[in-house]
Amino acid sequence: MDKHKIEVCYSPALFPYYENREAVVVVTDILRASSAIVTAFMNGVERIIPVGSLEEAKAYKDRGFMVAAERDGIVRDFADFGNSPYNFHREQVEGHQIVYSTTNGTNAIHLASSGSQVLIGAWLNISALARHIWKEGRDLLVLCAGWRNKFNLEDTLFAGALAQMVLRNDQFYTICDATLGAMDLYEAAQGDMMGYIEKVAQRHRLRKNNLDDVIGYCHESDLTDLIPVLEDDKLVRL
Amino acid sequence: MDKHKIEVCYSPALFPYYENREAVVVVTDILRASSAIVTAFMNGVERIIPVGSLEEAKAYKDRGFMVAAERDGIVRDFADFGNSPYNFHREQVEGHQIVYSTTNGTNAIHLASSGSQVLIGAWLNISALARHIWKEGRDLLVLCAGWRNKFNLEDTLFAGALAQMVLRNDQFYTICDATLGAMDLYEAAQGDMMGYIEKVAQRHRLRKNNLDDVIGYCHESDLTDLIPVLEDDKLVRL
Repeated sequence: MDKHKIEVCYSPALFPYYENREAVVVVTDILRASSAIVTAFMNGVERIIPVGSLEEAKAYKDRGFMVAAERDGIVRDFADFGNSPYNFHREQVEGHQIVYSTTNGTNAIHLASSGSQVLIGAWLNISALARHIWKEGRDLLVLCAGWRNKFNLEDTLFAGALAQMVLRNDQFYTICDATLGAMDLYEAAQGDMMGYIEKVAQRHRLRKNNLDDVIGYCHESDLTDLIPVLEDDKLVRL
Repeated sequence: MDKHKIEVCYSPALFPYYENREAVVVVTDILRASSAIVTAFMNGVERIIPVGSLEEAKAYKDRGFMVAAERDGIVRDFADFGNSPYNFHREQVEGHQIVYSTTNGTNAIHLASSGSQVLIGAWLNISALARHIWKEGRDLLVLCAGWRNKFNLEDTLFAGALAQMVLRNDQFYTICDATLGAMDLYEAAQGDMMGYIEKVAQRHRLRKNNLDDVIGYCHESDLTDLIPVLEDDKLVRL
């Protein structure tokens, strides 16, 4: 049986060089879009419609949809929610669909849609992801949303942890420098993850706007087995 | 006095997001273009003309220039040299100019030319680079040539080491996740650099073609104070 390769792509702008139509693509934007999306499903959301532009988000709002929309961490005034996992309370989201537009995350989701399956990954569902990837038995490509196409550490640490976990199954291998680098950075960070996260640029951006309350939550592992999956351009429960 | 920031760009494809016209740009392609270029200057080459395409390189050859041209590690049949630092013997290169085209390196050099100054960086001249950057007193952007626009480890380790060295001068700072990541990877690797380099993808590519004899040499520090600099689209001694 052919083994399945693991690759990590550090930026949406690099996706064309990693694109793999055979792969399960896990999109991650730890601070905060992918953590918020997983949380919304934990709280019973029915469906999330990722849209790229604020104009699209606004158009959905005008048609009566609930909308989550932020840029650079700031909720847009027409929107019902921003990008904090704490926004998506069960009372508001259960059984509903939500339109979602963020600085980096939704663009990455659209890019990833050329893969054989697109999943949303966060620490919150990391072990469930690894088990699902083992079961699928396909290549894995982790797409980090990054920050405006730049590399970021928090997505990379998650990618390294997921790769390391998936590699415990010997049907998977990697010869990808970005994956090896991500695993080594995770190794360096894992003893004191919150201490390490202190230094990442996104933490400073969030703190400046008093939005850093969610950082601990966004790094909690295995709060759920739920995995959001892209189907017909919408995210639903796998 | 304003401090000077350090950034690292992991791929030519990400350069637009890091571009900084105020910065000194250090282009690196450790295995093997930047190591070979520095070595050519150590052996007395007068000038190196980096060209992107093999067609351009071939046209120069037809006009009587000495040409270094490889793709994927393999010397092109019309060329005088490939991409190994061991190719550039003093007897052949001293006082001459050489046209140079490689898979990743020369493209990165052309991209970088929007910076205020473009230097070629390798382990061979790392301390001289740091001293020059301190003297210039400008921002520093390290551009890793990568592998076909993908992240690679060997360029990243060098970028991390150079950033760490330059940061010893407190007029420099970084808030760039890619720089922090590169420094942490260098920290992890530096105790056993050759052991670490064992795992990088480019080592396997070179070994397959019996071209891995240069890897030790390409990781020797401070064999020279020479720094190649781009002037009018040609590399000369700084």
